[in-house]
Amino acid sequence: MLAAEARIRPYIRETPVETSAVLGRKSGARVFLKLENFQLTGSFKLRGAMSKLLALTPEQQQRGVVAASSGNFGVAVAHGVQTLGTRGVVFVPADASPAKIDAIRERGVEVRQEDGDCVLSEAKARKYSEDNGLAYLSPYNDPQVVGGQGTIGVELARQLDGIDVVYIALGGGGLISGVAGYLKSLDERVEIVACSSEHSKVMHESVAAGRVLELDSQPTLSDGTAGGVEQGAITLELCRRLVDRYLLVSEDDIRDAMRLIIGHHHVLIEGAAGVAVAGYLQDAEHRAEQLANRRVAIILCGANIAMPTLKGVL
Amino acid sequence: MLAAEARIRPYIRETPVETSAVLGRKSGARVFLKLENFQLTGSFKLRGAMSKLLALTPEQQQRGVVAASSGNFGVAVAHGVQTLGTRGVVFVPADASPAKIDAIRERGVEVRQEDGDCVLSEAKARKYSEDNGLAYLSPYNDPQVVGGQGTIGVELARQLDGIDVVYIALGGGGLISGVAGYLKSLDERVEIVACSSEHSKVMHESVAAGRVLELDSQPTLSDGTAGGVEQGAITLELCRRLVDRYLLVSEDDIRDAMRLIIGHHHVLIEGAAGVAVAGYLQDAEHRAEQLANRRVAIILCGANIAMPTLKGVL
Repeated sequence: MLAAEARIRPYIRETPVETSAVLGRKSGARVFLKLENFQLTGSFKLRGAMSKLLALTPEQQQRGVVAASSGNFGVAVAHGVQTLGTRGVVFVPADASPAKIDAIRERGVEVRQEDGDCVLSEAKARKYSEDNGLAYLSPYNDPQVVGGQGTIGVELARQLDGIDVVYIALGGGGLISGVAGYLKSLDERVEIVACSSEHSKVMHESVAAGRVLELDSQPTLSDGTAGGVEQGAITLELCRRLVDRYLLVSEDDIRDAMRLIIGHHHVLIEGAAGVAVAGYLQDAEHRAEQLANRRVAIILCGANIAMPTLKGVL
Repeated sequence: MLAAEARIRPYIRETPVETSAVLGRKSGARVFLKLENFQLTGSFKLRGAMSKLLALTPEQQQRGVVAASSGNFGVAVAHGVQTLGTRGVVFVPADASPAKIDAIRERGVEVRQEDGDCVLSEAKARKYSEDNGLAYLSPYNDPQVVGGQGTIGVELARQLDGIDVVYIALGGGGLISGVAGYLKSLDERVEIVACSSEHSKVMHESVAAGRVLELDSQPTLSDGTAGGVEQGAITLELCRRLVDRYLLVSEDDIRDAMRLIIGHHHVLIEGAAGVAVAGYLQDAEHRAEQLANRRVAIILCGANIAMPTLKGVL
């Protein structure tokens, strides 16, 4: 993890933490927001993408890379590819947003949009990478990517004088596995809370079942955590080992959480960040006594919200 | 200036710069955004407030301070007062937003709301400070405050490999005087462009007249730069010496600029930051040839926008 940090340090921003008095009052905890929405490219995904890109051999880097993503990871890989002066292809699912596709193309990276959801575009990207002898970058199913996301934990440990509980949105599990893995290596008593949208809870249910399930998702404000998980994902076992509790939040919860953060802290967050805040608010309502006087970190994982969505939230 | 920087460094955030491809394409310039909207308290005002607070004698600090502000400066002073563990009173005008008043009170600082506009609340605050033997903090009419704002220039000079043009919103003139003063001390060829809202252009007209004018303002999205200027303000002469060009922008220009930044860069900005972006866009439209291949910095001075205003802008 520290090796990953040393590698990616010049390419990412160390993001600040901010105290949230308004959230703290809900439970009596001291609440700190990790402002990963201030990260370059607007989300934490750059950490994992750079970690993986920099772990490739010079030959692999030079030949170019293949990735699959409906959004933030694709933009992060494109940014990394541009920074390192190499080439890339990103496979996106049928419903990928035009704005995200533009953001990838703008960085000189080829986009291939095909039928199907994100699990299918991951499969197509893997096949394309094998057929063409190119390195494949998974958004979560890769130890180098997980390690890169974990650098958020490295920064948190340095920035805060002790952490008791961390609220993190759960999608493919790369972010939570990386952060939990590092923080628990320092102190295994840190409580890790995984927060998922009721409308898309594939990893949430998969952990409960002990295997990766194929479940449909409904539309959710948290597009960053939505969709299926690749069979054999290493994050399933990491989550089982590292996550202490799992919460589900509703779309209304996510909306309220986003309004609270945007209104009080004047920072932009996307739905996935709202999921983590909503998870904390649920605990603050139902088990405030367990939170009182504890030090709580909430990861605001990204800022990439489409303008019509933002307008709808407000 | 460097002394001011060394003093305030532990109390503020060094804010990042971000390249803006979308703005660059409008003129052929290389455009860099100074993300002062990421500053603690959501605006650059904290720099000037901390600079002044830390320049007081220990006795002055301990007795407490008085400030006048309708918004960001009041919140910044309150934050500084809280950080240093002292006391403060902030005078706000009749039309100050309830959210800003809450943000000041939340930090344990007394708020006095009185009739009249911000020039009047500045006069009342000055009188109160004299009557009670307390230090007065002006939002712009103080060399220590101007010097504090100038630390943005110190960071820009370190972060960028050369700067040709800087676009800055003009209110009382503290921000532009500080940044221009420092950058021109390094290289007097740096072009400083002051951008004002057509709806509130007191300093803009005052500089043209050579004296502080008493002019009415209309409502503007740029509440951070709106309102009158104190008679005898040191910033009038500083602007006359340091600012190369003055631009006026319409409310529609400000709105379009805000939408562009929020939509493309996924960061929240308030109207005053939109004014600087709108100034650049005006130049990009009318004199792109003077901007092509130059290095342009635009200061996104703050993020503190009210939710209904944000909704209206989107």
